[in-house]
Amino acid sequence: MSKFATYAQAGVSIDAADEMEDEIYSSIAGTFGTRVIESKGAFAGFFRLDYDEKLFKKNYKNPVLVACTDGVGSKVQLATKIKKFDTVGIDLVAMNVNDMLVHGAEPLFFLDYLAVNKLEPKTVARMVKGVAAGCKMADCALIGGETAEMPDTYRKGDFDIAGFAVGVVERKKIINGKNIRPGDVVLGLASSGLHSNGYALVRSICFKQQKMNMTDVVAVLGTPCGELDGAVLGDVLLEPTRIYVRPIVKLLSQYKVKQVVHGMAHITGGGLVGNIPRVLPKDCNAVIKKTSWPKHKIFTFLQNAGPVEESEMYKVFNMGIGFVLIVAEDFAHSIANKLTRFGEQVYTIGEITSGTGNVALK
Amino acid sequence: MSKFATYAQAGVSIDAADEMEDEIYSSIAGTFGTRVIESKGAFAGFFRLDYDEKLFKKNYKNPVLVACTDGVGSKVQLATKIKKFDTVGIDLVAMNVNDMLVHGAEPLFFLDYLAVNKLEPKTVARMVKGVAAGCKMADCALIGGETAEMPDTYRKGDFDIAGFAVGVVERKKIINGKNIRPGDVVLGLASSGLHSNGYALVRSICFKQQKMNMTDVVAVLGTPCGELDGAVLGDVLLEPTRIYVRPIVKLLSQYKVKQVVHGMAHITGGGLVGNIPRVLPKDCNAVIKKTSWPKHKIFTFLQNAGPVEESEMYKVFNMGIGFVLIVAEDFAHSIANKLTRFGEQVYTIGEITSGTGNVALK
Repeated sequence: MSKFATYAQAGVSIDAADEMEDEIYSSIAGTFGTRVIESKGAFAGFFRLDYDEKLFKKNYKNPVLVACTDGVGSKVQLATKIKKFDTVGIDLVAMNVNDMLVHGAEPLFFLDYLAVNKLEPKTVARMVKGVAAGCKMADCALIGGETAEMPDTYRKGDFDIAGFAVGVVERKKIINGKNIRPGDVVLGLASSGLHSNGYALVRSICFKQQKMNMTDVVAVLGTPCGELDGAVLGDVLLEPTRIYVRPIVKLLSQYKVKQVVHGMAHITGGGLVGNIPRVLPKDCNAVIKKTSWPKHKIFTFLQNAGPVEESEMYKVFNMGIGFVLIVAEDFAHSIANKLTRFGEQVYTIGEITSGTGNVALK
Repeated sequence: MSKFATYAQAGVSIDAADEMEDEIYSSIAGTFGTRVIESKGAFAGFFRLDYDEKLFKKNYKNPVLVACTDGVGSKVQLATKIKKFDTVGIDLVAMNVNDMLVHGAEPLFFLDYLAVNKLEPKTVARMVKGVAAGCKMADCALIGGETAEMPDTYRKGDFDIAGFAVGVVERKKIINGKNIRPGDVVLGLASSGLHSNGYALVRSICFKQQKMNMTDVVAVLGTPCGELDGAVLGDVLLEPTRIYVRPIVKLLSQYKVKQVVHGMAHITGGGLVGNIPRVLPKDCNAVIKKTSWPKHKIFTFLQNAGPVEESEMYKVFNMGIGFVLIVAEDFAHSIANKLTRFGEQVYTIGEITSGTGNVALK
């Protein structure tokens, strides 16, 4: 060992960083469309707006860039627990692109920030491959990222991950809820499970109170469809967040003139009661009928195991609905059919009444 | 205490999050130009590209979006040590916008991701105000952000912060180093100190080896200009990273036809030897003369205190040069004069020779 202090001795390895970059570049490049200008090793990522290309020129006369940032929250702690690193990247993309979808934007590109205790090229590669997989599902390009080694901020094996998404929407077509009116129908799209919110409470209930293990087979969890076979707790808790980009972008592209989708909401922390009001006009309420969709068994399990009051459950979790559309009554049936055809489980979960900008759970 | 498990008991307070949002909104709104569409409470931030406005239309015929993400690294640990939270936001903006500047892009907007052990509205507000201050210095709008409370990932008092910047550059004016040729002159702009890299080593030397405190007055540190009075260690270590946006954007705007700036580099982790090669053609070397600029005393201090080998110092730290321009020989003098007039300390630190894509320190 040298008597000289070096950066490697202080816990940061620049060589490991280089090795990792090569490892992950191929999965990243797999997300590039024709609008990405390749720039391996550059200081930034490049995305062409392509105003000289006919297709894009026609689509956007007055483009507005829409940007989001979010993380995966303490779901990352569960990934660490069983060293399953290939799906949090999908959660990360989902949390960001579902947010921008709400305003009618289509995702263009994505960047990720990953901070770890120690750079382990293979682990980092698995995480970034997950991000790339999510980007493919969301039809956006992964044009940049940063991996930070911070041995004193993160404990051994721990990490955090944050993402940034940029999309575009025609200015006149920004959906912000202002057209919502009494009589509109509230459609809910099924979530894939917990998505990426409420994990502080999940972990408190499952591991601190119930002393469960991620590998436990829990008979009562089963599947949301009601099969009797049990499920492994870790699989249920780490099920990736559903990405709603393709069905929503496709739906909106079929109503280029008529504005039939009046508002949308991504159901994250705060649940239906916290997120729907973010797009409701001050003089409208959303009346949601709780029995109108099947709940995943994980929610019933958590509610009983806590126990957690039902009202708290609806404030913390999505309760089975990951994305909400508020649509003109006359088009509700047709929109629901289209979304079903695009592969979504669609439920009519409520209606808009005159009110005070709140959600009434019935 | 309720028998019911609640999200607040599990360590996450949604009310504190709401309180904080109001607290910080005014500082964020201070960064908005006319191109931001206000969207408080929305799921995303909005930035108009304004193709219907004459000025912008003229500036960009074929716009390319340029995106970066970076954090502040373990410099955040020092901020925590003395609870000084108002400057890491400036570091965060600097680390991102200086990266995109390298390619000739001008910053448009910024988003931040802040993850903490516990949401303390006043502390978070101080950090976000720092980010907003940085955005003002960089002439970009802070259009979004996320604050995540993750009590099990971050220790009490600890946090991490990541940023994301989007800018724009005319496609034909992307600067990528391909025009660099032997005879070009290397100009260096003074850094404000350590900037945001090498802090794992800094902390190891100052606190583990030398058992110093952030409040120590260290006579040998003085100021880079050579005054004899000592400086407080914490102030020297937390000096914010210099933001080079205004002088560089202004410089480039004065050479709209001629391409006289052939390459640029933001000197971050890896130092001059690691970052200049990122823009050097494979058949060129950059010969850098180490005595051509005054070093800040903090580098000499760290080198002696480690002790750290000089070659390692140049691999980890910026050594006093935060940003490098590689320019056509005939214009070097005029460019240096302009940058000096714009408020930079400019040094001619080397030249380009034929070579193998490396930096030779002389």
